[in-house]
Amino acid sequence: MDNFTFYSPTLYEFGRGAEEKTGMLTFLMGVKKVMIVFGKKYVKANGLLDRIESSLSTIGIEYVEYGGIEANPTDDRVYEAIAIARDKHVDGLLAIGGGSVIDTAKAVAAGVPYEGDFWDFFSGRSIVKKALPVGVVLTIPGAGSEGSGNAVITRRETLQKLSLRTDSILKPRFAIVDPELTFTLSAYQTACGIVDMMSHIMERYFSPTSRVEVSDRLAEGLLLSLITEAPKALADPTDYQSRANIEWAGTLAHNGLVGCGRREDWVSHFMEHEISAVYGVTHGAGLAVVIPAWMAFMAHHKPSKVAQLGRRVFGVEAPDDRTAAIEAVASLRAFFSAVLRMPLTFKALGIAEPDIDLLVSKLHEDKGETIGGYYKLSAKDTRQIYELMLDEPSRPQSAS
Amino acid sequence: MDNFTFYSPTLYEFGRGAEEKTGMLTFLMGVKKVMIVFGKKYVKANGLLDRIESSLSTIGIEYVEYGGIEANPTDDRVYEAIAIARDKHVDGLLAIGGGSVIDTAKAVAAGVPYEGDFWDFFSGRSIVKKALPVGVVLTIPGAGSEGSGNAVITRRETLQKLSLRTDSILKPRFAIVDPELTFTLSAYQTACGIVDMMSHIMERYFSPTSRVEVSDRLAEGLLLSLITEAPKALADPTDYQSRANIEWAGTLAHNGLVGCGRREDWVSHFMEHEISAVYGVTHGAGLAVVIPAWMAFMAHHKPSKVAQLGRRVFGVEAPDDRTAAIEAVASLRAFFSAVLRMPLTFKALGIAEPDIDLLVSKLHEDKGETIGGYYKLSAKDTRQIYELMLDEPSRPQSAS
Repeated sequence: MDNFTFYSPTLYEFGRGAEEKTGMLTFLMGVKKVMIVFGKKYVKANGLLDRIESSLSTIGIEYVEYGGIEANPTDDRVYEAIAIARDKHVDGLLAIGGGSVIDTAKAVAAGVPYEGDFWDFFSGRSIVKKALPVGVVLTIPGAGSEGSGNAVITRRETLQKLSLRTDSILKPRFAIVDPELTFTLSAYQTACGIVDMMSHIMERYFSPTSRVEVSDRLAEGLLLSLITEAPKALADPTDYQSRANIEWAGTLAHNGLVGCGRREDWVSHFMEHEISAVYGVTHGAGLAVVIPAWMAFMAHHKPSKVAQLGRRVFGVEAPDDRTAAIEAVASLRAFFSAVLRMPLTFKALGIAEPDIDLLVSKLHEDKGETIGGYYKLSAKDTRQIYELMLDEPSRPQSAS
Repeated sequence: MDNFTFYSPTLYEFGRGAEEKTGMLTFLMGVKKVMIVFGKKYVKANGLLDRIESSLSTIGIEYVEYGGIEANPTDDRVYEAIAIARDKHVDGLLAIGGGSVIDTAKAVAAGVPYEGDFWDFFSGRSIVKKALPVGVVLTIPGAGSEGSGNAVITRRETLQKLSLRTDSILKPRFAIVDPELTFTLSAYQTACGIVDMMSHIMERYFSPTSRVEVSDRLAEGLLLSLITEAPKALADPTDYQSRANIEWAGTLAHNGLVGCGRREDWVSHFMEHEISAVYGVTHGAGLAVVIPAWMAFMAHHKPSKVAQLGRRVFGVEAPDDRTAAIEAVASLRAFFSAVLRMPLTFKALGIAEPDIDLLVSKLHEDKGETIGGYYKLSAKDTRQIYELMLDEPSRPQSAS
């Protein structure tokens, strides 16, 4: 276990009707005029926006609406929102939505008090020293942005999808999580969210750091919860209890808890970000294609932790690590495919002829010559992993 | 899963040498003159107090020492410390120690700005509305007070051992956790701490609330970690990695995480508090006697969750719940006794002739006619549980 700092000061208000506390919690974060950031139609159509605005008005908080954020949010919307927020003298952000909306709100929160170009925070040219406070009403779980200090924005011009990571300055002050707001998510959206949650756990789980029993066991526990609850939510989208367990697991997957005391990996995210930046696929669906390919490669190059995952989460019994790891990959593929109905190949993702040259070159241009915490990957390795996404089922043997 | 609020704003600074950051973290909590609360000799003898005072001085923070706090801390010391803190115009507390020291510091933090008698907070006559900020340097893990908003103090005159529970106002602003500071703990202290951690997890795990898969899995994961790491720390007290895992598990056991979304139990704690208030035993050792007796009773009256614990944590395979629960109790007893070398009976605890009448009457006088979240216990039931602590091994059959 390595030294670490863990600071997760987000207040979680969880449960049926929790959004009624939006006004009070916004007031407690000291905000007088809030910019409400949201997506396309959902929050207006179902009356949620009205309910939240009335909760703000009751307590005397003014608000400015900024809607229409789409999946894989782009820098142009952030620039526009920053200009409006400055013009209207907004002193806080309220995101109603999922990762795209929350990430946009965070980028705006950091950009408003910054004199330079907000993209500096994403390109690594500057770090966030102050930001407006952000509150969240979560409607699409998965991204985990409600508990993280991170944001991901795509540069429209260059298709660079980059992330901004802060210790805590951009962690939301509060996150309102009402599982009933997720009842209307489609099976596809639900499944994409679950893959994203599992990936946030596994990116931390696949670590070179040894003796992290507590963080390992917590990660495995969250994965087991998701594997247990996912089929229930898919069978009955209004099953409150499975929605609640999935949503809480998704928050804990990404608030830093399961990363405590260890180096993390994040290669699957990096590889998926290139795919979704170029082809505009849904992040969770892209991850369902990337993760098993990454794991199949590891089953042959560094199987130990993949084997542990197989034994503790999927009940694999093989005594040697390589066999256990190969079985773990097969179990994860089966879960993604048969239970979550997720794609496992580029083709199933709707990309008939992926430009692997482009993906590999953009990946290493953005992230460096070698990447990965668990195992260092060169461009030759990442090409091999992208190639494993071509065939279904990609037989793990082909990785050796 | 029930609705819940989870707010754990404590910053954890974890690892080797973390105590060097005490001055900086105390400064960041806005304190100019801090009262350092500590125990008997350890922190002076090993130079820790000097190191911390120098870390405070370097950054210009003044301090007042208040030492000599003993196990099962008493109200007289709190009154004295409040008087000194007011006289010296202290504006923050720094606890260096374990639960007794931290709880004393919290009681002082709540008492200083309060016009009435601080005991009002423990007797339930008043609630804490403001408090001085508290920071912690943890040297004895187990109590979990470094991440909780609670404190337990004993009234010297009446031997009432009562707890004060707050949502977050008394949660420490920061907790410095350096596993090396625990190398000198004896096997007995180490084992007592581990029992206390396990009890904090189980008091939350034994809940009547259904469909709490995430909180269950996290609780089971922490228990599995402790069961794995305990024998290593006992075999080699300077094994940094097992000390680190145990200490982090102990913090997460009691910061509210595993209680999210469910009603909790706490009967084992209440029953033990009566024993330690009357007989002055170590809390963890007392719990090692109480918990298996409580569980043996439940194996016959409400076995379901005891059986789940057995199956998921101790690998019990019995198909029916009652048998699985009985086997779970046997496994826990074996772990407490053979691995941790803890007592399992009043006699082993050094109480040859326990006054069960007194314990039962004080228990229900303090806590009400029926007690318990998992299963409601009358005085007849709690008497039966105390009686199960008379014989070793208390055969679970005797509970029916």
